[in-house]
This record gives sequence, C-alpha cells and structure tokens, in this order.
Amino acid sequence: MKTKGLYCFRTFLLVLFFLGFQDCVQGRLLAASKPDRDDAAAYARWLVSQNTWGILNTLSSELEGAPFGNVVSFSDGLPDKGTGIPYFYLTTLDPTARNALKDQRSSLTISEYPLGTCGKADPESPVCAKITFTGSLGLLDAKSKEAEFAQTALFTKHPEMKGWPKSHNFQIFKLEIKDIFMINWFGGPKPLTVEQYLDYKMNKFAVSL
Amino acid sequence: MKTKGLYCFRTFLLVLFFLGFQDCVQGRLLAASKPDRDDAAAYARWLVSQNTWGILNTLSSELEGAPFGNVVSFSDGLPDKGTGIPYFYLTTLDPTARNALKDQRSSLTISEYPLGTCGKADPESPVCAKITFTGSLGLLDAKSKEAEFAQTALFTKHPEMKGWPKSHNFQIFKLEIKDIFMINWFGGPKPLTVEQYLDYKMNKFAVSL
Repeated sequence: MKTKGLYCFRTFLLVLFFLGFQDCVQGRLLAASKPDRDDAAAYARWLVSQNTWGILNTLSSELEGAPFGNVVSFSDGLPDKGTGIPYFYLTTLDPTARNALKDQRSSLTISEYPLGTCGKADPESPVCAKITFTGSLGLLDAKSKEAEFAQTALFTKHPEMKGWPKSHNFQIFKLEIKDIFMINWFGGPKPLTVEQYLDYKMNKFAVSL
Repeated sequence: MKTKGLYCFRTFLLVLFFLGFQDCVQGRLLAASKPDRDDAAAYARWLVSQNTWGILNTLSSELEGAPFGNVVSFSDGLPDKGTGIPYFYLTTLDPTARNALKDQRSSLTISEYPLGTCGKADPESPVCAKITFTGSLGLLDAKSKEAEFAQTALFTKHPEMKGWPKSHNFQIFKLEIKDIFMINWFGGPKPLTVEQYLDYKMNKFAVSL
C-alpha cells in the first residue's frame, strides 16, 4: 500500500508538473518576475514587455470624434530586450489606422489581469495593475532602421503576423508616448515621467525562469 | 501491478478533473458555449456576458482631448441573464468618470482573448473576436430601479466591489450603445445593429456546463 501510494503521489506530481508547463496564461510563460510595486518605471516596463496585446484608442473620424478602442497586438522589442516603445502592425482596412492617419492623438491601455499575476483581485482593483500611455500614433517609414527593428520585434512576439495577407497592406505604427497613467496599488496613479520610463534599464529584472 | 496502475490512473483522472474546475481563465468558468460565428448578435452577447472586464474609453479633459482608455470591470446582468447593456462602478477619483461627466462620448472594447477560447490565434487575428461599443457613458440616478438592477449585476459578478471604500463615492454608469463594431472572423466587421444586439434572447445559448 505504501509503495502504491508513492507511485500515485509521483503520478500526481508529474501531472501537476506537466500542467504547470502548459501555462494558464494563454500558452505563454512569463519570463521575468514581477518587480517591486514601488519601482514605477520597472513595473511599467515589465507590464509592457510581458504583455503582447492591449487596446489602442484613437479618435473616430467615422463616429463623430468618439474615442474608439480596438484590440491590437504590440511589441516593444525582442523578448526581455524591450525598449518600452510600443509598435503595431496595422492595416487601413481597420478604423484604428484610418483614424490615426487623420488625427494622431491616441492611447494604449494594458492590463495586468491577463498575465494571471493579480491573484484573486478584481480586474478593476488597484491591486491589479493598469497602464495607459497617451501620445501620438504615427506611421513609420517602411525603409527606416526603426521600422526594420519594429518588424523584427513584432514578428518575434507575433509569428502569425508574417503570414498576414500582403494585399491588406499592413504597416508599422509607433506610439510616441507623452503621458503615462499607471495604477499598480492603492493610493492613486504612480508618479512616472516618460523619461524615467524610457531610461529604465530592463536588465535589472531578475529572470525567474 | 494492475490494481496499482488502476489507482494511479484514477488519481490522474481526479487531478485532471480538479484542475479542469480550477479553470485557466482567471478562475472563472465559462457558462455558455461559443455561438456560431455567423450569428453576430449571439456572438456579441456571448462576448459581453462571458467577459467581466474591458477597456472603457473617454475623451480626456486633462490630455488635450486625447482618447483615454482605462481598465474597468463591467456587468450586463446576472450570470447567464445578461441584458447586453454594460454597467460600470466608477469613482471620479479616476479620470474616466471625470471625463464622462464632461463629455459622454465613449466606447467599451472587449477581447475574446482572455476567455481562452481563441486557440492559438494571435490576439489581433480576426479569428479571435473583438468588439467595440461606441455610445454615451452616463451616470445613473442612484435611486432608480435601473441603478438597483445594475448594482446587483455588478456586485454579483464582482463581489469585491461591495467592499470598495465608501469615501471614494463609487457611482453606477451605463453605456448607451449607439454603434457596434465586431470582428469575429475573416471578411471585416460583422453587420450588427444595436437593435439586433439588444433584442437577442440569451436563452438561445446551449449551456455547456
């Protein structure tokens, strides 16, 4: 009986191990551990480097200037080598790119919730971080070095993009950040300048895997 | 050996069963199966009833009229008894409620991605549904029947809200929908009027659990 119990316990552990590696967060392993919540720049850069999608908001030229959110994928660089600057791969078949070409005012909102690191906190709780970058959403010159960098960054985190139809004329857009609104604990938005955010050195992260 | 193997297999099944009920989607069980993608109203109502959070966009009165997205929790009714109308519990300590009180133009964007039902599709892929409701974000009269209904709907899906500080003066807001933009497959946005969306009877859903 003792041996049988041991075998069963081993099976149990193996199953847990296997399922652990399946990952509950949309099949993606989190590469870096969550930074100290009082280090606003580190926390913001972590949110951006670990998340792969968010809501990109533009002013609707078709709906009386309403703020129009759209689900987009983004990348700020190669995994664990983020720059903090969000790049997008958009087509003017979609209202977001059309809106941005008429009025660059935009924001990108990202939640910590889908990373699965908020515990039991409600998605609106200040304990579950949220960040909004407000700025200008501009089209990059396709032949520029920056567009080349951004395309590699996007295609590495979103391999499916490589196969998206050429006829849809996807182009690379960049959000030039002018303001950062981040809540990652009680007590209101964390003070964080764009300079502090962009200057943060990502290699401070303790890699947990 | 045979008996031991059977015990281990049973342990394995029990663990799978237990972990299945843990749910990979942020601890919440999906109550209704995914509708046919060609039934736009059913799909839209399913997205709203199954999701508990999204990005609520307003026009920033503090950032030169920029579109400002914010992570919010919402509810459209009791679980499996949704009305399709999104209600929110907001405080003017947060820019979103302040913006809405100055200019009601707003949108709510929801992704299918965090539900875990997109398979391996990228979050921006048309195969992973996204929906944006554009309309007016208005404050409800706290003494109205609708506010009472909305509060029950919100507190049932977001029990944490009951304990949020009274001093923050949370109030109930409603998005009066004027336009629906939904992509849930290739071929561009699905034609869907507000009337078709609101008139859809939720009990058509096949409950899968």
